[in-house]
Amino acid sequence: MKIAIQGQQASFHDIAARQFFGQDIDIIACETFAETFERLADGQAEQAVVAIENSLFGSINEVYDLLLKEKTWIRGEVYQHISQCLIGLPGASLANIKEVHSHPVALAQCEAYLNANLPQAERFEHHDTAGSVADVKQWNDPTKAAIASRGAAELHGMAVLAEEIETHKQNYTRFVVVQPQPPASSEVTSKTSMVLVTSHQPGALYHALGAFAKQSINLTKLQSRPIIGQTWHYMFYVDVSVGSTDPALQTALVELKTQNCEVTILGSYQAGDAEAVTS
Amino acid sequence: MKIAIQGQQASFHDIAARQFFGQDIDIIACETFAETFERLADGQAEQAVVAIENSLFGSINEVYDLLLKEKTWIRGEVYQHISQCLIGLPGASLANIKEVHSHPVALAQCEAYLNANLPQAERFEHHDTAGSVADVKQWNDPTKAAIASRGAAELHGMAVLAEEIETHKQNYTRFVVVQPQPPASSEVTSKTSMVLVTSHQPGALYHALGAFAKQSINLTKLQSRPIIGQTWHYMFYVDVSVGSTDPALQTALVELKTQNCEVTILGSYQAGDAEAVTS
Repeated sequence: MKIAIQGQQASFHDIAARQFFGQDIDIIACETFAETFERLADGQAEQAVVAIENSLFGSINEVYDLLLKEKTWIRGEVYQHISQCLIGLPGASLANIKEVHSHPVALAQCEAYLNANLPQAERFEHHDTAGSVADVKQWNDPTKAAIASRGAAELHGMAVLAEEIETHKQNYTRFVVVQPQPPASSEVTSKTSMVLVTSHQPGALYHALGAFAKQSINLTKLQSRPIIGQTWHYMFYVDVSVGSTDPALQTALVELKTQNCEVTILGSYQAGDAEAVTS
Repeated sequence: MKIAIQGQQASFHDIAARQFFGQDIDIIACETFAETFERLADGQAEQAVVAIENSLFGSINEVYDLLLKEKTWIRGEVYQHISQCLIGLPGASLANIKEVHSHPVALAQCEAYLNANLPQAERFEHHDTAGSVADVKQWNDPTKAAIASRGAAELHGMAVLAEEIETHKQNYTRFVVVQPQPPASSEVTSKTSMVLVTSHQPGALYHALGAFAKQSINLTKLQSRPIIGQTWHYMFYVDVSVGSTDPALQTALVELKTQNCEVTILGSYQAGDAEAVTS
């Protein structure tokens, strides 16, 4: 199976894809989220795995926008504990590191460690954590280091100079698994993602959430995004903890229709195990 | 009055600050939002002006987080229409431009124009739009251009090679005006910003919004952000269209307390005129 991801082999996206599909997959490495969705659209990939939110940084707005724009279908989710390592050439010494390369989010996650331990090192941004390890290997310079997963160090035969260097240890990322179309036959699912566009009446969001509350449907996420062309009006991305064919959800959707609330279902899937995460 | 802004003279932040305070201000130019709040904290600035959301890109999460963390007080808001110009040396020709420099958001806003008119030009990121104009002037190279406001071109005596080059013309930014403390005496205000941390019960957000709906208080914005250390739980930034001393809001706040919903008021101010915006 061909899976498009943002990043390359041993990136956190790659680890998430293997957590969901197992090892028997072909990774289509992409530089950006937009490119990842393009590979789905042009058929080069059958599925895609994209990060949608991080427990420290919040929602990845670009992915929320792409999910709606590209009319794809979310068919799964994966949670991952993010643990960062400082990675250099075998034999490199922490004291001699002059440059640190990684994705800007990874650099930010490890800022306290870098300030305390490598205050002299210059930081360089790369579009991928694992790719920065490949670069450091190719440069073959023991004064350069990368920040990435332990798996990226192992893949490239590089040395872990320090581990768990992230400031906040409760650092988790939620990924969604996306395919071009909904499945032909309905599957058993336990979670549904959708976008609500309410009427522009005061209290419209309150009444929309009431349609779920009356059915005892729990919301696990609510994310507002601007509506392009309707300045200062918002749509709401909502995750609920029931499948799309659940009668309670069907009843709520009927009530939303009577409220003139437009609903777009983005996908329905088995909830991932947010507790049993691997790093 | 000393006003800290992200960006330098003739940046969109500078224009917003002068729109609110008039021309008789001293600008403290900062490279980042964090630095802007630091200048408030260390007393080098009396007030700060920071962008909080854009009608196309949505909320600026870093600013939302800083408003809560730094315990400042929002005392005003300004809306601005964002219109971008391509700016070069006097006598420079569009056909010869090989490099375009600007803030990454400005580059993204003008991507369609650049792809259509300057497909060969390489793009370079700068932390400020107006600063990229100053750089192009200093380099004195007619093959280099910047993207910024018309005011930035005028300030530096540079030429506008093309104007209104942004893809979406409905491009507005909302700025908030921030001071270190609430005012000593309460002022007449028409809008209040706050953060809600609801209990972890299903339906908690619905009931919290109900406290406002029952008082006919209109929500103009709702933005979720992660709670650091409580993975996959969220707080909600809410703007309501009443002042903080309004009896209806006081009643709503009492009800929120009975719901065990923690409320932090971020500020109260006169609503800006979202229609009468200048570019």
